Amino acid sequence: MRLVTISDIRAAAALVAPAVLRTPLLPCPWADDDRPLWLKPENLQPVGAFKIRGAFHALARLPEEVRVLGVVAYSSGNHAQAVAYAAKRFGVPAVIVVPDTTPRVKIDATRSHGAEVHTVPVAERESRARYLSHQRGSTLIPPFDHVDVIAGQGTVGLEIAEDLPDVRTVLVPVSGGGLISGVAVAIKALCPDARVIGVEPALAADAAESLRAGRRSSSWSPALRARTIADGLRAEPSELTFAHMRELVDGIVAVSEADIRAAVPWLVHNSRLVAEPSGAVTVAAYLNHRDELPPGRTVAVVSGGNLDPALLSELLAE
Amino acid sequence: MRLVTISDIRAAAALVAPAVLRTPLLPCPWADDDRPLWLKPENLQPVGAFKIRGAFHALARLPEEVRVLGVVAYSSGNHAQAVAYAAKRFGVPAVIVVPDTTPRVKIDATRSHGAEVHTVPVAERESRARYLSHQRGSTLIPPFDHVDVIAGQGTVGLEIAEDLPDVRTVLVPVSGGGLISGVAVAIKALCPDARVIGVEPALAADAAESLRAGRRSSSWSPALRARTIADGLRAEPSELTFAHMRELVDGIVAVSEADIRAAVPWLVHNSRLVAEPSGAVTVAAYLNHRDELPPGRTVAVVSGGNLDPALLSELLAE
Repeated sequence: MRLVTISDIRAAAALVAPAVLRTPLLPCPWADDDRPLWLKPENLQPVGAFKIRGAFHALARLPEEVRVLGVVAYSSGNHAQAVAYAAKRFGVPAVIVVPDTTPRVKIDATRSHGAEVHTVPVAERESRARYLSHQRGSTLIPPFDHVDVIAGQGTVGLEIAEDLPDVRTVLVPVSGGGLISGVAVAIKALCPDARVIGVEPALAADAAESLRAGRRSSSWSPALRARTIADGLRAEPSELTFAHMRELVDGIVAVSEADIRAAVPWLVHNSRLVAEPSGAVTVAAYLNHRDELPPGRTVAVVSGGNLDPALLSELLAE
Repeated sequence: MRLVTISDIRAAAALVAPAVLRTPLLPCPWADDDRPLWLKPENLQPVGAFKIRGAFHALARLPEEVRVLGVVAYSSGNHAQAVAYAAKRFGVPAVIVVPDTTPRVKIDATRSHGAEVHTVPVAERESRARYLSHQRGSTLIPPFDHVDVIAGQGTVGLEIAEDLPDVRTVLVPVSGGGLISGVAVAIKALCPDARVIGVEPALAADAAESLRAGRRSSSWSPALRARTIADGLRAEPSELTFAHMRELVDGIVAVSEADIRAAVPWLVHNSRLVAEPSGAVTVAAYLNHRDELPPGRTVAVVSGGNLDPALLSELLAE
């Protein structure tokens, strides 16, 4: 199995530059003195999440005669928007298959980019996407299980390494593992003293269990993982992303639902950022699990900011 | 009267770099096709507002033997936080005089930076600040009526010109006029085809009246201006900032209270940014006064993001 390299990520950075915001590191004046914190606000991307990096890169890497036939994606939401937006930028058709539990704000945003959206039961989304891809001759863009997608997400890590070369800890949300795999490749190549630590909901803590076991765990059913409010963190790593994580990730922190819910208003009031629960888990880890984190300069990746207005109001009222 | 020059602003940019975030321009996928929009999110600065630029620059320009005696500021809030934060960065004492109508969140944030805060009736804030400055031998840092403050705020315009050289319209909130004066100097020097348009609340539309009259208007009492929810836009230009505006600003758009209130949740849901009402007026102008704006690439400066949590919840519920 070929793992992504830092050269892949550097090449991806050049390809995605026209469509991806180079997000700044935001210093947090309210951080610990011995563990200064910067946020990497991927919620400020045009689609509201880091997913635009991998999706745009995957489309950019398709031969033009293939790309023009269109793309298909299945996703819990942000990848859907990202593929739809990338397809619009390239002027090619996109079909998106989303589970019927997806927040409406994400479906509306996907449609607003001109994509054809199919809503299906969560267990059928991959098979439906494969069927549509076959039927139309279009290319399936997987949400994380692809080297081009991982290399695109890795540009987050490349930017962190360029902007804060003496970073000691990078906190990254973990779901399917595309983001943390790419970030870990970049950080380990460029900042060998830094640790890359994943964060996942305690209610969907399959990655930690798998890393402890040394193989992908199968004890976390989709129904179990669906309990967390962090709807973007309910997927499981693939063989490809798990291989990256086993080699490169230093640890996983699990955060409670209460801490995730509190991190959303914390970011609103302290950093003027709107993050979705999945995007706020790294801040939840920083605020509540400091004893599990090494000292030194810390970056928390805030991975996305798409949440239903009603949920945001609910979380702000708690 | 000496006006600020582009050389002053370039020098300021070098001096403020250690403390000021170089904010990115955020493209807005939901903008008009004939008037594409980028946001300049100054609410992401460490103190939550552009004011850090002018305040840090003013302190940086003081001779060290003067700076160590400390600084004094009077402000409706964000300038207070900015001076307190800049003083902490330089390790010198700060005394801040704020009107008793200042939102608690701004007072708490100012104290959290180690400043001594004095709360007084709004009409007394300048006299109290001058008294404290005289009593302690410390330097008064005015919120806008100073070339160093204007040059610092002008770094916002310098960054816009560098990042989007073919910008056609820059929308800037107007209160005392420090921000728009500095931005206009930079934009007119570097992008001579671009227009700089101020935005103010219709309930505090003194700048438009003054520009029409060709002299500073006196028909807007503090009590009248206090009616707007945009608590950062209740000041009036000084002779110095008015001289800049008369020479360099192309027009003023007035926005209603309803449009200001709606712009705050709009930014939350569409751009994942928390802006205070004063910071959201430019987006209110873009959304509701398109017929008053030229076509072409447009930048809206989102000047700040400090608002009481209760007010944010109220605006999100409307």
